[in-house]
Amino acid sequence: MNKDAIWIDEIHKNSRYGLKGKILSREKSEFQEIIILETEEYGNALMLDGCWMISDKQEKYYHECLVHPALTSLEKISKVLIIGGGDGGTARECLKYKSLLKIDLVEIDKLVIDLSKKHLKQVNENSWEDPRLKIHIADGTKWIRERNDNDYDAIFIDCSDPSEFSKGLFSLEFYKECKRIMSKNGILATQSESPESFKKHHINIINSIKEIFNISSTMYSFVPFYPSGLWSWTFASDDNKNFLKPKFKNLKIIECSCEVWNRKYQKGAFQMMPNKIIKELSKRK
Amino acid sequence: MNKDAIWIDEIHKNSRYGLKGKILSREKSEFQEIIILETEEYGNALMLDGCWMISDKQEKYYHECLVHPALTSLEKISKVLIIGGGDGGTARECLKYKSLLKIDLVEIDKLVIDLSKKHLKQVNENSWEDPRLKIHIADGTKWIRERNDNDYDAIFIDCSDPSEFSKGLFSLEFYKECKRIMSKNGILATQSESPESFKKHHINIINSIKEIFNISSTMYSFVPFYPSGLWSWTFASDDNKNFLKPKFKNLKIIECSCEVWNRKYQKGAFQMMPNKIIKELSKRK
Repeated sequence: MNKDAIWIDEIHKNSRYGLKGKILSREKSEFQEIIILETEEYGNALMLDGCWMISDKQEKYYHECLVHPALTSLEKISKVLIIGGGDGGTARECLKYKSLLKIDLVEIDKLVIDLSKKHLKQVNENSWEDPRLKIHIADGTKWIRERNDNDYDAIFIDCSDPSEFSKGLFSLEFYKECKRIMSKNGILATQSESPESFKKHHINIINSIKEIFNISSTMYSFVPFYPSGLWSWTFASDDNKNFLKPKFKNLKIIECSCEVWNRKYQKGAFQMMPNKIIKELSKRK
Repeated sequence: MNKDAIWIDEIHKNSRYGLKGKILSREKSEFQEIIILETEEYGNALMLDGCWMISDKQEKYYHECLVHPALTSLEKISKVLIIGGGDGGTARECLKYKSLLKIDLVEIDKLVIDLSKKHLKQVNENSWEDPRLKIHIADGTKWIRERNDNDYDAIFIDCSDPSEFSKGLFSLEFYKECKRIMSKNGILATQSESPESFKKHHINIINSIKEIFNISSTMYSFVPFYPSGLWSWTFASDDNKNFLKPKFKNLKIIECSCEVWNRKYQKGAFQMMPNKIIKELSKRK
């Protein structure tokens, strides 16, 4: 281990998760503090405002689970929207779909993209150079209001935990706008926090999405270096017929390219709602 | 937070997971260092030789997943063996089954039991007073050699990571002895480490069990405060017919008593082998 190595911790309610490594970059943007740490075991790791976002060696647990349940269930994928996702990992997974013509990626913080381009090449691979990917530096909640109806086949909300500047991405108004700009059988996919460490947020996201969309479902899987290791992703649509039913044509190619996700894994993950969350959700109204 | 609160960390390959709290006990037994920490968020937590074992508020993720897939699939449960399990949590889950006549719990370290009785009452509830539970302070690998053939309906291996004194609990010889003392349709259940943080151990356990038993299967779930949060349990039997098929008579009572585990959760958890572990296991021989 490098002699300059120091511990950087995410602290959450009297627990902490730390990685030891060398700081490659520590900067303050208009929105947040951004740290990039070089570690031996996990590669380069990105922290935003004290919370670990991704590391080279663990990010696939997160990105594969956000993207593939949605995209493998669509017959035709031409246009995709990513809100957040400034590390490039979600875009990378989307770009595996050959039929895709365009991704709009709307990131509020340009510095996250600039630092990711420099230090997180293993995560974003060559995504930034792909002509199908178009970057917009903007507040997603505002940007989305100016889009046309029924324009996107899938929308990915790939954002950090609710904070002063990101809380709008968890609001009813925002979900309504997402629904408006989605194609008829389009799918919304959002990270929906940890049922263990962020139980209140988790419950709120599920309930809000249920209010706006005809059909929704939550999957549980692992993100080893998020608080509790246990994480969730919620998917929603107004199309009952094809919701989350994999189209086999795409599946094998995608499965082979993944480190974590596969068809069986996905099927299991949608069944893993802990008993205490089932009880909590059944209290509603 | 108490002013005496300090951080206690489990350190694993340049990552650390810490809890802040007040030390209730820090002792060295013949086998290991034992710390019990009082925390605000997670209740009392037990650490053995630098590794977190359980905390009041998170242990159900572990114990429910070890016990119920095995016991709900048995027609008749009269005699159960627990190797390790000195915190009493596994015994507590077993004692929910009314037909159970006897549990032998074989723990190598008496001090773990003594400190658990004193400080981990929320975990073991009244298990220690139940006349069906018999404690043996002994090395499980030796104790098991003197048991009769076909005597136990289920065996739970509830031990810490492989170390100088626990590595025997992961050996082919030990699994063979387990098989010998198990009833014909009996089930073995062992914690089988994290496929992320202890990948080598995880693969070894799965392969060793496959060598000894006719049928086996691994489930993946969450233990929020173990390294990576992602954990596994492997089940084995020589009885193909009833292996891990829930018997509905028991199920509803058990499900209602659980914080995490339920029938659907279990079904999902057995499908969640990450792609990279599937690939690793297929390399074998």
